Amino acid sequence: MSMKSLDDLFIHFLRDILYAEKQALKAMRTMERKASADSLKTLIAAHQSETETHVERLQTVLDGLGKSARGVRCEAIDGIIEEAKELMEESEDEATRDAAIIAAAQAVEHYEITRYGTLVTWAKQLGHADAAKLLSATLSEESAADEKLSGLATSTLNKQAAAA
Amino acid sequence: MSMKSLDDLFIHFLRDILYAEKQALKAMRTMERKASADSLKTLIAAHQSETETHVERLQTVLDGLGKSARGVRCEAIDGIIEEAKELMEESEDEATRDAAIIAAAQAVEHYEITRYGTLVTWAKQLGHADAAKLLSATLSEESAADEKLSGLATSTLNKQAAAA
Repeated sequence: MSMKSLDDLFIHFLRDILYAEKQALKAMRTMERKASADSLKTLIAAHQSETETHVERLQTVLDGLGKSARGVRCEAIDGIIEEAKELMEESEDEATRDAAIIAAAQAVEHYEITRYGTLVTWAKQLGHADAAKLLSATLSEESAADEKLSGLATSTLNKQAAAA
Repeated sequence: MSMKSLDDLFIHFLRDILYAEKQALKAMRTMERKASADSLKTLIAAHQSETETHVERLQTVLDGLGKSARGVRCEAIDGIIEEAKELMEESEDEATRDAAIIAAAQAVEHYEITRYGTLVTWAKQLGHADAAKLLSATLSEESAADEKLSGLATSTLNKQAAAA
């Protein structure tokens, strides 16, 4: 796809993150299944339903711009999720695997945080106020999910992994 | 590689980010060459020399733990950099390409931020105080680099891209 303007980049990034959110949703289902601690399973499940809302918001934004709400393959999220799968496979006990799942989920969140950060800035620059508002709401939820994962790691799960 | 403890994960993540830093260094050379705005070229060049220090710190940490300072292939950074290359190739004018380079560089920074965040937490949990200190110093520099890129985008370069 050739991009000649910030508008083109904005649409491309919306479709990139739409694909990324859908892949993240699949990855979270696996993470929830492979996690051992109930607290971690619960956190991942809650973020899955937030992610469904993020997908809907992206569809709303693309519709509002008169663009089709189709994702475009995102090499970055594919790599991040591939690494997450390897970490889950290679972790041999439950506490180690939970620590790895938290780190892997945070890598997904950080990719989303950087992309939504860029998208919000570009939406404002381009005068798409409604889009900026929806994308900001998602950005806040991604940051909150990242902080909850950090909180869970430092409060309990890292201690269990260190004692394993 | 099979991982049976938080210690194993910690070593694995150190080697993963060592590989990632080296790949990021190569990618930054390309970004610097393809960037048009002098302010962006200068920022990327400055972060390259910081990144050389980050590589040295990782070597120091691995040496201190009696482990070889070899990287392990990191699918995540490979995907992030592959996407960065595509963005640079597909951006057809200078201002659009500079906006894309900033977004791509921030995706690299955010991967590093999440990994160093995890590493600092694990180093503290495992009682590796010296490692925690070195990794924290790098984490601060990665966050600062991300903020400088945001600042450059919002102060000038996004306006130029929107006007292109």
